[in-house]
Amino acid sequence: MPLRIPVVEKILSANDRLAVENQARFDTARVLALNIMASPGAGKTSLVEQTLKGFSGRLRIGMINGDIATSFDADRAQAAGATAIQINTGGDCHLDAAMVQSAISQLDLGALDLVIIENVGNLVCPADFKLGTHKSVLVASIPEGDDKPYKYPGMYRGVDVVVINKIDLLPYVPFRMDFFKKGIEVLNPGVVQFEISCRTGVGLSSWLAWLDRQVQEFKHN
Amino acid sequence: MPLRIPVVEKILSANDRLAVENQARFDTARVLALNIMASPGAGKTSLVEQTLKGFSGRLRIGMINGDIATSFDADRAQAAGATAIQINTGGDCHLDAAMVQSAISQLDLGALDLVIIENVGNLVCPADFKLGTHKSVLVASIPEGDDKPYKYPGMYRGVDVVVINKIDLLPYVPFRMDFFKKGIEVLNPGVVQFEISCRTGVGLSSWLAWLDRQVQEFKHN
Repeated sequence: MPLRIPVVEKILSANDRLAVENQARFDTARVLALNIMASPGAGKTSLVEQTLKGFSGRLRIGMINGDIATSFDADRAQAAGATAIQINTGGDCHLDAAMVQSAISQLDLGALDLVIIENVGNLVCPADFKLGTHKSVLVASIPEGDDKPYKYPGMYRGVDVVVINKIDLLPYVPFRMDFFKKGIEVLNPGVVQFEISCRTGVGLSSWLAWLDRQVQEFKHN
Repeated sequence: MPLRIPVVEKILSANDRLAVENQARFDTARVLALNIMASPGAGKTSLVEQTLKGFSGRLRIGMINGDIATSFDADRAQAAGATAIQINTGGDCHLDAAMVQSAISQLDLGALDLVIIENVGNLVCPADFKLGTHKSVLVASIPEGDDKPYKYPGMYRGVDVVVINKIDLLPYVPFRMDFFKKGIEVLNPGVVQFEISCRTGVGLSSWLAWLDRQVQEFKHN
């Protein structure tokens, strides 16, 4: 009797299947896709604005903005020069792959280098829903406090990049950078990190240089 | 044939039924119960610490702290003098009435004047789950930005009190108080509001005086 080798296939959820489809569309067009997540008010939209400004005239960027209500973020992205699609989740606490698929169909991927998806402001639920992006970016914020990695491990564990924003507020709030970074290191050793202030501009050049390299490598490899 | 008068009963969800039971237990014990909600890092635990300190030796306060992971918040409440029960949701993005019911059973309600429930840091999901509390309190935070009422209407619409924290940071961040308050007023006209800084202590006396009056009125009426 032959030896039986069990073949275990991962059964994908409906969301994961759509995420795979989304990623295939990005791959075919050689467009790098980012999923930017954060608490409300950590600075996702400000980071997007600075990124659009930094790459102005050099990279073609499409935006997908997820919000429960309003088109404030898409308006800001559009004003900063991007083609922006607003998704209003109508109460839902996260984007899912189906919402993103519907937004992608309104973008001309062939005319873009980079798609940035700005998720709903929430440090919990978005971590559980793949969208089909290549990199996920968490925007942390100094005034949120240094205990956040410990209290929201699911989010900190799953991301490729942590952008620590509002470092201009360090003199005015209690924040132990060592303690904060120790939490990140335990959950996500070696994760790419940037310390920035979207308000003053400090640290942004490193973030832009890193992102530029990702876009170029993805396009040409 | 007699006129038929339809009797429409509201069908309560399983969560709402448990919330009604929770409230009945608070009512019987004449203990006022608060549900404190906010984004991650807006200052829920700092407000709790200041409240415990302000009422030290005068009100008997029980704490129920909801977090995805860690007992940091319950530790801080316990250090500040409260009996504190930590609920770890294990990934869930909100407290529900069943979790609270289980925590209540570990508190001696007869020996308390006030129960404060600190929800999971999340500006979306907790708004959808009644816990059986008498008042719900939203802690907003200046560095989160002035667009939050517009972007998270479900949360701002449903609360009894908005505590605007970190007003000591107003000189260092862009924040239009008029625009922010206009958003609140549209969604929740006349809602009780306080402007405070847990760090400097400014504004806390008004919050404490208001809360004291609520506790006393509830106890004696």
